[in-house]
Amino acid sequence: MRATIIHGERDVRVDDVPDPRLLTPTDAVVRVVAACVCGSDLWPYRGVTPTDEPKAIGHEFVGIVEEVGDDVSTVHVGDFVIAPFYFCDSTCVNCRNGVSTSCLTGGWWGSTDRDGKPVPGAQGERVRVPLADGTLVATPEVPDDGLVPSLLTLADVMGTGHHAALSAGVTTGSTVVVVGDGAVGLCAVLAAKRLGASRIVAMSRHADRQVIAREFGATDVVPERGDEGVARIKEMFDGVGPDCVLECVGTKESMDQAIRSARPGGMVGYVGVPNGGPELPVGRLFGTNVGVNGGVAPVRGYVEELLPEVLSGAITPGRVFDLELPLEQAAEAYAAMDERRATKVLLRP
Amino acid sequence: MRATIIHGERDVRVDDVPDPRLLTPTDAVVRVVAACVCGSDLWPYRGVTPTDEPKAIGHEFVGIVEEVGDDVSTVHVGDFVIAPFYFCDSTCVNCRNGVSTSCLTGGWWGSTDRDGKPVPGAQGERVRVPLADGTLVATPEVPDDGLVPSLLTLADVMGTGHHAALSAGVTTGSTVVVVGDGAVGLCAVLAAKRLGASRIVAMSRHADRQVIAREFGATDVVPERGDEGVARIKEMFDGVGPDCVLECVGTKESMDQAIRSARPGGMVGYVGVPNGGPELPVGRLFGTNVGVNGGVAPVRGYVEELLPEVLSGAITPGRVFDLELPLEQAAEAYAAMDERRATKVLLRP
Repeated sequence: MRATIIHGERDVRVDDVPDPRLLTPTDAVVRVVAACVCGSDLWPYRGVTPTDEPKAIGHEFVGIVEEVGDDVSTVHVGDFVIAPFYFCDSTCVNCRNGVSTSCLTGGWWGSTDRDGKPVPGAQGERVRVPLADGTLVATPEVPDDGLVPSLLTLADVMGTGHHAALSAGVTTGSTVVVVGDGAVGLCAVLAAKRLGASRIVAMSRHADRQVIAREFGATDVVPERGDEGVARIKEMFDGVGPDCVLECVGTKESMDQAIRSARPGGMVGYVGVPNGGPELPVGRLFGTNVGVNGGVAPVRGYVEELLPEVLSGAITPGRVFDLELPLEQAAEAYAAMDERRATKVLLRP
Repeated sequence: MRATIIHGERDVRVDDVPDPRLLTPTDAVVRVVAACVCGSDLWPYRGVTPTDEPKAIGHEFVGIVEEVGDDVSTVHVGDFVIAPFYFCDSTCVNCRNGVSTSCLTGGWWGSTDRDGKPVPGAQGERVRVPLADGTLVATPEVPDDGLVPSLLTLADVMGTGHHAALSAGVTTGSTVVVVGDGAVGLCAVLAAKRLGASRIVAMSRHADRQVIAREFGATDVVPERGDEGVARIKEMFDGVGPDCVLECVGTKESMDQAIRSARPGGMVGYVGVPNGGPELPVGRLFGTNVGVNGGVAPVRGYVEELLPEVLSGAITPGRVFDLELPLEQAAEAYAAMDERRATKVLLRP
């Protein structure tokens, strides 16, 4: 089959690779209907994290089940399924605690399972899914094609935005600032809105993203960053800042801005993959009682809550996709995101 | 009057100082019935934080109101009052948000008020209390002397332990580990118990403190520290760790132990004054979804909740005092705590 392989910095190719097949009785094989490129895929693409040897890439997909192992009972051949950006058993103590990203038997697409067997990346034609019962969520019926982008966001960015909001304790009446206007940041706006936030500020300087942020529920848009951004935010919220700040970037600058923006006693919910730090300034956090909570988002556990709203059209997180390409043009998908010509690119095998 | 003055490293004296008096209409003057020495007072005592010039010290006291300014309405001459370890107006936006330690007009004992007027330290015979309505809580009647130690803990250590537990999200059924067996750590055990924790581990290697920890509700005591302590704790809680870890020390080692002990998705509630760091390891926190929440405890806001239980004897946090001395022996009080001959020393002017 064809699959996306990263060979090195800015060198992404669609190559021929062996077809995946069932390797254990708990596996499924899924034909990918849509996959996409993640902001975190750009770290190896940009060479920020090194690629020592060619490696399957991609961790967000939806598709149709083509085969299931003998021990798979919750998904069936022909089902349309959503896969989170990792696989997990949904039964271990960490999964039961709602932290399936720390599953004791799980792992990552484009890697290996606990037995060392290969697990393909998601930007390909097919994926072997270990722990299929724990990992996959089937929709009640095969959805209209128009719903595919929004369903695909449940694999990562919508669930991750939701995690940022939950981690920051967003609830009815909360005041919220979202740092980052990428796909996750925009989804965090939407998540905050559906959790009942009374005021939501999107920190954004891109006109097209501002439009989506407002569609998703942002009441205000602030283009300033750094010291100016913090000052502007403080001023907007009683001179002290908002209850919740959702950090959706992962750089030292964005985390610093998030921590300094929150009001005393406020909470930063962060989901941006920390890129080589920063370490958090405990003295400032202590003095202001600003908490920091979040991490790699356990999106598998959020699918059941969010799926009905996607299917009904109540939320349309798929709006974050502003470019759709055939899988064969994966290299262009990466370039478009790297050069910020696209917010989020959907790939169709 | 007589008051405790720190002159430098390991040089604490009781000196003659001017009597405090009303300086603004919102002041009260309180005659100190009991004060005490805080673990954080040991940082200047040990020279870890420098003392550039002689300075009034002490920030925990209870007493009897002797004078009130014309604008004071909630406390009256003759009232027995509890003062938090800071003064605050209880009306500004931060106070209303429950973060009175970030009061916009408040400040610290042994310092100055917002107008630059002197505010005495608490380890003396009398204290001028700015913002008396916001700061002081009067008991319904002058309490029995036997209740004074427990009431005094509401000025700091009991409220601080409670803050650690709240910050970590302790609730009915939570599993909890408390790092630190000083007065705050012991109070954190008590706080976790009254919030409904199902299992509470006190990390302690001092027999006398272990006894109090068990009295306060600890179900287990673990003497190991560092890697051994973490391994022991993981093993006790499904191999993954407890829901909540209460960090009540403030050193790099204790915070590291706390973060590594929490289960994935767990929360560290920290109240130990960070002593020169550490910066928090965001990569580990991100990967495990362990949150960090807490800071300088807004104990003023907790007095109303905890006071009835102290008055009824339902909780006896005053058990943390294991030495009582006359004010004139303040130097011995510091030495006893520094040398760990005492957990917490009560001073009587």
